[in-house]
Amino acid sequence: MAFSSDNAFGPEEGPKEECGILGIYGRGEDVARLTYFGLFALQHRGQESAGIAVSNGERIRVHKDMGLVTQVFDEESLQSLTGHIAIGHTRYSTTGSSVVRNAQPLSCSSVVGDIAVAHNGNLVNTAHLSCELKKDGVIFQTTNDSEVIAQLIARSARENVEQGIIEAMQKLRGAYSLTIITQDRLIGVRDPYGVRPLCLGYMNGDPISPDRKTAYVLASETCALNVIGAHFIREVEPGEMVVIDDEGEREYQAVPAQRHATCLFEFIYFARPDSHIFDKNLHAARRRMGHELAREHPCKDAHVVVAIPDSATPAALGFAEASRIPFSEGVIKNRYIGRTFIQPDPRMRDLGVRMKFTPLREVLAGKKVVMVDDSIVRGTTTGKLVRMLFDAGALEVHVRISAPPVQYPCFYGIDMASQKELVAATKSIEEIREMIGATSLGYLSLEGVVRAVGLHKNKFCRACFDGHYPIRIPHDVKVTKWMLEEQEKPGDWEGGPDDGAPDSD
Amino acid sequence: MAFSSDNAFGPEEGPKEECGILGIYGRGEDVARLTYFGLFALQHRGQESAGIAVSNGERIRVHKDMGLVTQVFDEESLQSLTGHIAIGHTRYSTTGSSVVRNAQPLSCSSVVGDIAVAHNGNLVNTAHLSCELKKDGVIFQTTNDSEVIAQLIARSARENVEQGIIEAMQKLRGAYSLTIITQDRLIGVRDPYGVRPLCLGYMNGDPISPDRKTAYVLASETCALNVIGAHFIREVEPGEMVVIDDEGEREYQAVPAQRHATCLFEFIYFARPDSHIFDKNLHAARRRMGHELAREHPCKDAHVVVAIPDSATPAALGFAEASRIPFSEGVIKNRYIGRTFIQPDPRMRDLGVRMKFTPLREVLAGKKVVMVDDSIVRGTTTGKLVRMLFDAGALEVHVRISAPPVQYPCFYGIDMASQKELVAATKSIEEIREMIGATSLGYLSLEGVVRAVGLHKNKFCRACFDGHYPIRIPHDVKVTKWMLEEQEKPGDWEGGPDDGAPDSD
Amino acid sequence: MAFSSDNAFGPEEGPKEECGILGIYGRGEDVARLTYFGLFALQHRGQESAGIAVSNGERIRVHKDMGLVTQVFDEESLQSLTGHIAIGHTRYSTTGSSVVRNAQPLSCSSVVGDIAVAHNGNLVNTAHLSCELKKDGVIFQTTNDSEVIAQLIARSARENVEQGIIEAMQKLRGAYSLTIITQDRLIGVRDPYGVRPLCLGYMNGDPISPDRKTAYVLASETCALNVIGAHFIREVEPGEMVVIDDEGEREYQAVPAQRHATCLFEFIYFARPDSHIFDKNLHAARRRMGHELAREHPCKDAHVVVAIPDSATPAALGFAEASRIPFSEGVIKNRYIGRTFIQPDPRMRDLGVRMKFTPLREVLAGKKVVMVDDSIVRGTTTGKLVRMLFDAGALEVHVRISAPPVQYPCFYGIDMASQKELVAATKSIEEIREMIGATSLGYLSLEGVVRAVGLHKNKFCRACFDGHYPIRIPHDVKVTKWMLEEQEKPGDWEGGPDDGAPDSD
Amino acid sequence: MAFSSDNAFGPEEGPKEECGILGIYGRGEDVARLTYFGLFALQHRGQESAGIAVSNGERIRVHKDMGLVTQVFDEESLQSLTGHIAIGHTRYSTTGSSVVRNAQPLSCSSVVGDIAVAHNGNLVNTAHLSCELKKDGVIFQTTNDSEVIAQLIARSARENVEQGIIEAMQKLRGAYSLTIITQDRLIGVRDPYGVRPLCLGYMNGDPISPDRKTAYVLASETCALNVIGAHFIREVEPGEMVVIDDEGEREYQAVPAQRHATCLFEFIYFARPDSHIFDKNLHAARRRMGHELAREHPCKDAHVVVAIPDSATPAALGFAEASRIPFSEGVIKNRYIGRTFIQPDPRMRDLGVRMKFTPLREVLAGKKVVMVDDSIVRGTTTGKLVRMLFDAGALEVHVRISAPPVQYPCFYGIDMASQKELVAATKSIEEIREMIGATSLGYLSLEGVVRAVGLHKNKFCRACFDGHYPIRIPHDVKVTKWMLEEQEKPGDWEGGPDDGAPDSD
Repeated sequence: MAFSSDNAFGPEEGPKEECGILGIYGRGEDVARLTYFGLFALQHRGQESAGIAVSNGERIRVHKDMGLVTQVFDEESLQSLTGHIAIGHTRYSTTGSSVVRNAQPLSCSSVVGDIAVAHNGNLVNTAHLSCELKKDGVIFQTTNDSEVIAQLIARSARENVEQGIIEAMQKLRGAYSLTIITQDRLIGVRDPYGVRPLCLGYMNGDPISPDRKTAYVLASETCALNVIGAHFIREVEPGEMVVIDDEGEREYQAVPAQRHATCLFEFIYFARPDSHIFDKNLHAARRRMGHELAREHPCKDAHVVVAIPDSATPAALGFAEASRIPFSEGVIKNRYIGRTFIQPDPRMRDLGVRMKFTPLREVLAGKKVVMVDDSIVRGTTTGKLVRMLFDAGALEVHVRISAPPVQYPCFYGIDMASQKELVAATKSIEEIREMIGATSLGYLSLEGVVRAVGLHKNKFCRACFDGHYPIRIPHDVKVTKWMLEEQEKPGDWEGGPDDGAPDSD
Repeated sequence: MAFSSDNAFGPEEGPKEECGILGIYGRGEDVARLTYFGLFALQHRGQESAGIAVSNGERIRVHKDMGLVTQVFDEESLQSLTGHIAIGHTRYSTTGSSVVRNAQPLSCSSVVGDIAVAHNGNLVNTAHLSCELKKDGVIFQTTNDSEVIAQLIARSARENVEQGIIEAMQKLRGAYSLTIITQDRLIGVRDPYGVRPLCLGYMNGDPISPDRKTAYVLASETCALNVIGAHFIREVEPGEMVVIDDEGEREYQAVPAQRHATCLFEFIYFARPDSHIFDKNLHAARRRMGHELAREHPCKDAHVVVAIPDSATPAALGFAEASRIPFSEGVIKNRYIGRTFIQPDPRMRDLGVRMKFTPLREVLAGKKVVMVDDSIVRGTTTGKLVRMLFDAGALEVHVRISAPPVQYPCFYGIDMASQKELVAATKSIEEIREMIGATSLGYLSLEGVVRAVGLHKNKFCRACFDGHYPIRIPHDVKVTKWMLEEQEKPGDWEGGPDDGAPDSD
Repeated sequence: MAFSSDNAFGPEEGPKEECGILGIYGRGEDVARLTYFGLFALQHRGQESAGIAVSNGERIRVHKDMGLVTQVFDEESLQSLTGHIAIGHTRYSTTGSSVVRNAQPLSCSSVVGDIAVAHNGNLVNTAHLSCELKKDGVIFQTTNDSEVIAQLIARSARENVEQGIIEAMQKLRGAYSLTIITQDRLIGVRDPYGVRPLCLGYMNGDPISPDRKTAYVLASETCALNVIGAHFIREVEPGEMVVIDDEGEREYQAVPAQRHATCLFEFIYFARPDSHIFDKNLHAARRRMGHELAREHPCKDAHVVVAIPDSATPAALGFAEASRIPFSEGVIKNRYIGRTFIQPDPRMRDLGVRMKFTPLREVLAGKKVVMVDDSIVRGTTTGKLVRMLFDAGALEVHVRISAPPVQYPCFYGIDMASQKELVAATKSIEEIREMIGATSLGYLSLEGVVRAVGLHKNKFCRACFDGHYPIRIPHDVKVTKWMLEEQEKPGDWEGGPDDGAPDSD
Repeated sequence: MAFSSDNAFGPEEGPKEECGILGIYGRGEDVARLTYFGLFALQHRGQESAGIAVSNGERIRVHKDMGLVTQVFDEESLQSLTGHIAIGHTRYSTTGSSVVRNAQPLSCSSVVGDIAVAHNGNLVNTAHLSCELKKDGVIFQTTNDSEVIAQLIARSARENVEQGIIEAMQKLRGAYSLTIITQDRLIGVRDPYGVRPLCLGYMNGDPISPDRKTAYVLASETCALNVIGAHFIREVEPGEMVVIDDEGEREYQAVPAQRHATCLFEFIYFARPDSHIFDKNLHAARRRMGHELAREHPCKDAHVVVAIPDSATPAALGFAEASRIPFSEGVIKNRYIGRTFIQPDPRMRDLGVRMKFTPLREVLAGKKVVMVDDSIVRGTTTGKLVRMLFDAGALEVHVRISAPPVQYPCFYGIDMASQKELVAATKSIEEIREMIGATSLGYLSLEGVVRAVGLHKNKFCRACFDGHYPIRIPHDVKVTKWMLEEQEKPGDWEGGPDDGAPDSD
């Protein structure tokens, strides 16, 4: 249901990604312009604010503001960002609390000169770290994790920013993919679990030596490489720091890698379908989730499979393929949904959903329908969609979700909902089915998702499904006691709790 | 390829619709708010400017500005538009010349009091009319057809606005669907050919008498009725004037109806797939175009059918159904394309297309691909898309277009391109195939389109395909001599030229 | 008290001018830029909106918006206004009803091509004219007099815009100074009474022939000529039309001149002190009003003369000179007063006046003070100023006003107040003195003002002082019956009522 | 010439003040609103940006942006700033480098909770302090002194913000007046030399006990107390810290007071004429400077004394009084000068000056004129004014400056110009006279200024006149070697160099 900001009309059902980041090092390239187009391809990861910081070797300039990439930048602002090293950031839109002060990249001057930091993820020990830092006299001007990170780097940096980053990483707990620039280098960093994606690519601007790397690029997703014509090299590894300067590219295992715990929802929903993670194309993986879903929860009598566009379309296509039930568009999405603060008339029942989605009566009427979506968070939107399909004449609506029930909140950078709002945290599947009014309801199993992706389960963080948080949540995070107990308890899947130590399997 | 504004990066390939219009009469309703949500559903018909005019029975207030509906209005502006009669307008975004002065509705005071007019279509005798009017001392403050229309109405109105509209309609030549408000009534009008759509609906706010019509609604498309919970009554007929006031709804055959000549491109591309025209659902019709296309231009060896999203998806689904070749997403569309004026780096070859579409290598590589789109206008974008598919590993790219070749410009409200830019006006199909680099190229025949829609061919204007303009183009319209000759010449399809007279068939 | 917009904090005391206008014809000149700087010098005549229209010989482009001249224009907008003929307009800021639609110049296309009109003044028969025009089918899109004027010109113009203007002038009743451009000429017009000022000047850009007129300039005030380096030629005469094109300058007595009735308040308050009207410098005239005031209402025992800045300063200097009492600054004016809509805390007594003016205790304490101002309209601000002076320690506050009591509303372009709000319309001078709390109060007599200006009384409109309206007010203007009676009644000053006929003296 | 921002048209002649600050503590008061009106009265001290920070006892909210106070705030933003403790800031507009990031107050969270700081002045050891702090790992996100100050406070604060401020003050060198809020208190601080003004006042909102202090106010100038109805208590003393919380007001000598070195230019030019410093009214002091000037540089034959408005008017009045030569307005100032970036046409000679000032020929022609101004910085504007007066017919132009020649740059918060741009640093008075084209030129002596103020010379910083910097300028400040030598050398006036030690006299 995602791949869009769509936060019109009250609380949005889908989980929300925090940010997209980018970094480019290339002498002779218009790095600000390349960053602009790269950020454009990462716009789905955040629509609240956008920013670019550029170093010309001597100082860093930044331009950032609230809005979409195309709204924040114009030729004048891009042309003012001269240099050969750039990072960029797009930030996800939360309601209300968002202010320009919190836009990224965060830029500052420090003992090692100017630094700018762009962050994707969420630290779980922010409160602890900022408390410790404040005790040492540090002040905070924003509420961004990236300021905490910059502070830690600056305190450890002394003469050497790389050492500062390594020391900072030893203190950071949580999910973080970072692109950082100093006056003379670009640095990419990924947390020891690799929760949020980050990949490395290069550009070749030399027609004579087509393998020469004339520029390096770091990006949240491979789709950003594609749009600017960069070539994929590899993903940044968990705990790794990649440094690029005039000497070329250097790699460090900055902190010991833990077991890979890449967010499984990146596969199910967040990342763009044309991106690759772990060398797996997201569209293909989602299509296979549809295959698995058809196997686990078949629906033999159904006449048609429809998706809730756009993110569930691949899974629906896969479901249709595997079940040999025809796929059709069944619900049309309004492409112009943006922020609107206009209140509907009280009599406009379900206007929010109707503004965004409309059913195709010709496809649905008199049919037994399989409706594929990729998640149920609070359940209210799903309920409205089911009713919309029945209102359009569907005889039966069989809801199939290409992911397991979301039962636990995410602390690593996804704004899902508080635990008590998660319908699957408190209701059985049958209760959910009843609540949403579906004829039947089937969730893809965690094993099914993992099979579809084609990698070992322990490559992923699937805490929102099974409550086993790979990175321990500190006590100052507000969770129910029950949740913390869960965290202590040995999981069914793994041999023991994930607690910062490498996973045994 | 359409259903979107998408005018990033130079001339856009797809044809462009001019406007969406709406009108509501309902005592006790918050008509400005309803109009806002209705316009929102018509946003695909125009993204340049938006406006709402409301009468409270004594005077008309208007609020309009450049931008999307959600950008132009906020609670404050909506709340200032008090009254019980409203019209709204969304205007299509042309490059450069657009100014707030040209935003609609056009409102004015006249001998019959305040009037506001919202117009969808294009007059072909604007120059003649405005010249005549100027000779009588009339001044024009905009370059909108709607000002010409308002002037004509005012000059004929005397004591009676309805009489003024009828007299104005006798002088107007071209395509026009209008919603008009005076201080005390709402009026809907459609040109005698019914080129642009306009439908009538009602709302029921009375729970005790569910059939009572508590409000009447006029809208370009039925999708706007749906979003505000209105019920479809019927289409406004060619040459008809519908008047709604406190007495209820009255109907007049204001000018004699000509043969129906509804724009065939509304079926192929413009109208939202969840709308109905002539009681035909657009999604279903487009799907049948895919069936016809598969019959006319089969592609037996192909492995996969892909659409250029979003508008070609129904036809691609239809093609896949009919040909029993699997359908897949093959090209991903960036949902955040908006206006950007940032120039790409010269080395970013094909960036414009890449910004908007990216291929799914996993779907395409090693495959013989059928690529379904709904039009080729200039041919450049199609060429880039074909190359993109080959670059992603496609072995063959068979282009199938769910419409005939566009050979003639539209004078009735669609901004396609000048005739010499239309690739099909000067090139054979084989030459186009070569130019776009496709393995094969097939256009759906006009007969095929008409069969898919399921109505007699003479219900439609298909001038852009066959050059037979149902409404004569005056000599002051700039067309090549060759074109005018074409216009005089008896067509192959019809018995004779369309010249304002009812068609004989 | 004027020479400033200052409409912060509730109803402003001072009368308000409507507009400033300008026109330039000069091949080889950057006429838009010159107009910009000229308008800047006329900013005191209107701060609500600003606009410039420029013809390049083929078409007229206009740029206008709400705000100060410096806010409305930037380099980009100025550079887009290419051509050699320009007019400009600044509009006075009324509260609330102001919208961009009403900004001027009004531009339109007509039978004689493009026309743009800028207007200063106020017609008294607008309602009548627009009613007549509407009966003929004319529509109005604004509520500006300038649209009425443009309509009348267009209706009479036929092949000849000058004839159209002459015919229009025969229908217009009221105060109007106009600058008009067509595609190929600049036209200046003044009503037959010359109520609002308009002067003609020239520029010399030819260093070899320093008397050659390389450009002609029309402006509301001579100060606008000065700032752009133009030389004053003469005032446009009542009823005159000046036409400038490539042939040079031509003059017509378009309609018969009536007795001169130039607004006396231009001398007292509106026009900039460095401007000249009737070859009289405004600063010098106001200084002489101070002399007369000292003679008529001496104040022998006073210790100090202070002005309410800025507009009353010359009169206060004159009073001090004539009475040999020292002049001092006594009240400081905040230069940053702009529009503010922030409501003061209820306990902030007199905040509005205190925001704008603060007293100098050192100058005032223990002193008998003469406080010179140029008008009392409603009386509330004057009362607050008097109290402020007493609060600062003044022993006595002798208020001297350099104009007679304002007893009648203005219908010719000044927004004073309705008649019942005019304190002098209903109260005797002693009652006003009591109301404002002054030790004594003296108004300069009409004879005194006229003497100070140095011209015959019948050169002026002084209707706001004596109720003798030189241009008859039609019955559709809302005035009290008592006022209309006044109008019919023979005046004390003149032999008879002013009724559109030339004055006998 | 000052009391205005007026930075239109190239480098402005007058020196420029940095900032105005305010603070209010008052339970039951709408402190944000009061701060708004107080800042409004301090607008002359800075027009670039404005901001207000408010604490409600639990957290601090801030609203700040580029622009005038009336532009930055509206009802909505003011109403969001709820609480009972507020500080505000207006910042001076430097060209180009100004960004919203540098707007004040600076707010942050720290070990002692939220803090916000507003600063007027300039530190001379910023570079040293920030370098030291960076070595300790501190990062800087702005280029404001106030961030340095906040960092120092936070590092020393531990449990006690007051202790933190005291320790910070021990490290700060330069000019600083500060208003600071924490969650529960308002603090005012002044550097040990008292360079920039800061005063304390109270409000009384209790009608029964008119002496009860219901709110305390800190402000740069007394004029801000007046506008909000607060009563002056006293100035904050050099080195003093004033703390206000629910317990009332407490005073600390935070660091030892040095000799008073209040900026003499506050008396000559910066502070508003209705303000008081050292219990001296500024208007009266400036008038006495005129008296002294007439004594030192009489001009017996002159016919008229004119001022360059507005700041030189009191001195010109004083000159006229003492010399018995009539005072007149001679130059009119355009009140609407704001930022304009429009380039004049190259042929518009002296347009910049003409835009801002126009002469009154009637006053000047044929006269020997004394032109009083308060400073000559670069000399170019003065030269243009002299020429303007001659062009208006003046026979002689005798320039009198109510201050000594400015020969040395200011390091304590005034943006004058670099030393080499100061015309008096490199030219003799006769050379300046020749350069500006004046008939004669006289500067008031330092002794004369001091006499006019009526306090001992050693109350003041007069470094810009005599180069004796009371606070040593560190070596990292860019000054010419010659200047530093000057600094070491014993002055003529004092017994020795000012070096952080209390002055002996």
